[in-house]
Order: sequence, then C-alpha cells, then structure tokens
Amino acid sequence: MKNHVITISREFGSGGRTIGKMVAEKLGIPCYDNELIQKIAEESGFKADYIKEAGEYAPGGFLASAFSHRNNGTNNADYLWEIQYNTITDLAQKGPCVIVGRCADYILRGKADCLRVFVHADMEFRAERIVKVYGERDESPEQRLKDKDKRRAAYYRFYTDMKWGDARNYDAALNSGTIGIEKCADLIRDLYERRKSES
Amino acid sequence: MKNHVITISREFGSGGRTIGKMVAEKLGIPCYDNELIQKIAEESGFKADYIKEAGEYAPGGFLASAFSHRNNGTNNADYLWEIQYNTITDLAQKGPCVIVGRCADYILRGKADCLRVFVHADMEFRAERIVKVYGERDESPEQRLKDKDKRRAAYYRFYTDMKWGDARNYDAALNSGTIGIEKCADLIRDLYERRKSES
Repeated sequence: MKNHVITISREFGSGGRTIGKMVAEKLGIPCYDNELIQKIAEESGFKADYIKEAGEYAPGGFLASAFSHRNNGTNNADYLWEIQYNTITDLAQKGPCVIVGRCADYILRGKADCLRVFVHADMEFRAERIVKVYGERDESPEQRLKDKDKRRAAYYRFYTDMKWGDARNYDAALNSGTIGIEKCADLIRDLYERRKSES
Repeated sequence: MKNHVITISREFGSGGRTIGKMVAEKLGIPCYDNELIQKIAEESGFKADYIKEAGEYAPGGFLASAFSHRNNGTNNADYLWEIQYNTITDLAQKGPCVIVGRCADYILRGKADCLRVFVHADMEFRAERIVKVYGERDESPEQRLKDKDKRRAAYYRFYTDMKWGDARNYDAALNSGTIGIEKCADLIRDLYERRKSES
C-alpha cells in the first residue's frame, strides 16, 4: 500500500512552511523541510546553505554559472536533483509525512498517495510577513519576493516540465492571505483525514 | 458594506455548477447560473442559447466570425459583455449569492467581498462525468473537454487579461475529482462562513 503524503509547494513568504509544520503537528506525522535539506547535505557532501540556495536555481538559465561542472560531465544542480529525488522517494516509503517544497509532488507521482497543496498569497501579505519573519534587507521585500518567485518557478519548470502555480497541478491551492494560516492548516488536515479514511 | 459573494470558475465537466448550487442551498442564498443567462437574455434581446455559447468565444480570435458587427461598431460579444458586466454588478449589490462562471470574479473586484473559487478535475474524471450528465455526442468526451477548456480560457484571458486556472487568481482552487463534489461544497461553505464571521 502507498503511504499518504502531503506535499506543499508555496510562494515565498506565504507561510507554506509554517502551515506544513502545523499540519504535521496536528496529525502527529513528521514534516520534512530543513530536515530534508540536512539529509541531502549528508548524502551529497554539500553544505546545507548551498543546497537551500541551489533548490531555487534552474540549471541552464542565466544563473547556470553558479554551478561548477563535476568531473563526470553532470553539473552540481543535476547531481543534487538526483540525491533529492532519491531522498524524497525514501522518506515517502518510510511512512506518512508532510514534505515542503523541492518538487516533491512531482517526484512522488505514482509512488505515494499524495495530497498536493499549493499555498500562495498576494504581494502585500507576503511582503509584510517576510519582514516580520526574516527581518529587513537592503533589497525591498517586494524585490526579494519577485526574485524568489521567479527562481522557484524556473526550477520547478526545468525539472518537472509543469507550470508552477497552475491550479490544475494540485488537489487544493489556498490563499493563506485571505484564508489565514491556521485555517489553511485545518483544511489540509481535514482533506488528508478524509482521503485516508476513504482509501 | 459590501455583500459577500462566492464566485465559481470551473473547468467544463468538473461539477463546478453543481457545487455552486449545493453551496447556495446549504447557505440559503441564491445561485446564479442559468438565471444569470436568462437575465442577460432579457436585457440584451438575444436568445439564452446564443448567450450560453457566446460566453465561451473570445472576440478577435479565429471564431470572431461567429459575431456579426452591430451598427455602432461594437460587436455582439462586446455588447453582451457590457450587459453581463452590469447584470453581475447589480446582482452582487442585491445581496449575498453564488455566481457561476462569466468572469464574475473579475467583474466584482472592489465591488463585493468575493470568495473566489476555481474548480477543476483531471480529464478522466470530467470525461466520465460529461457523458453521464450531458449524454454521448459524435465527438469524443476528451475532444469536447479540450474545446470547451480552450474557449473558456481564451474568453477569460480576453476580458480579464488574467490567466485562467492560475491558482493565484483565487482564494481556493479545488480538484473535485480527488476531493469529491460534496466535500468541495462543504469546504466552500466553511470558508464563506468563516470570512463572513470575521468581517
């Protein structure tokens, strides 16, 4: 039997990671986000910070120079993708869990019974939130959001060949700005429990 | 105070119209779909069937010839859009309601407190459903779905300048195939009541 997994894709600053943690806590199952990065770091030998950044750069684009080529001809991004792919597949085989980001929805197609969620919010809500959560930077919060969104979309597109943020790729796409972070977590738990009880 | 309105955009065959009716019934508020078409028919002098079809043709595209030009230089599609725009605006001013299709989410921006919902489902679910609901046709259900989707997307794009089906245009985008039609209706009612109680 396939495990029940919740995958959460999210716009930067939308609270998707917080929602993932809340849902996992409510359900008593693990949430992989930073833990996932640690695991990929152990497997790959790269530093966690590098992996965090690399997860948002699609190779081949104008940022390709950020990736040095490895001896066997593959670049670091592709090498990391392979480790990420295997790590996520392994985690989903262990038991029910929540996985935030990292194209887990795509990686687990056919491998787990996934509830695929996308969390987004408008610029104003996210700008206010990232300043609260991550503090001020030289760059305006709006510029930081635009950069991050662009990178995540390009990364997702490159590896999955699907359009990031298209409602049709998900079971539920929720606006955390208008629905509220706590309520989003409740809804996702509710959908997860219903699906589990029906399978 | 602005009225609370639920707008439902939907892929053909996803059950969005049925969900709209269910939600309206649960909440004891009107649902405008065929009623809306009747009202536009009365206002415009066109037949209801023509309006139903016209709502899925964007003017200027390869189907533009379907619209004869009116004396004052505007075409029928633009004339209908204007009536549709005014009719929807009037309905939302009357009181809380559910409006299915017709770019109501766009038309009511700033005019009502809208809960904007998108309902979709995969091809298989929708193909089975349209045969059940509308019966067999010469064309395959998959071809009918593709045609309808394409037309609705083009119509929405033309009049709203937004991408149809992009999760970020909605408060909640739900997959009726995986969540279930009845459960979608429950979720929407729940979101509506919560928003109403907070405002």
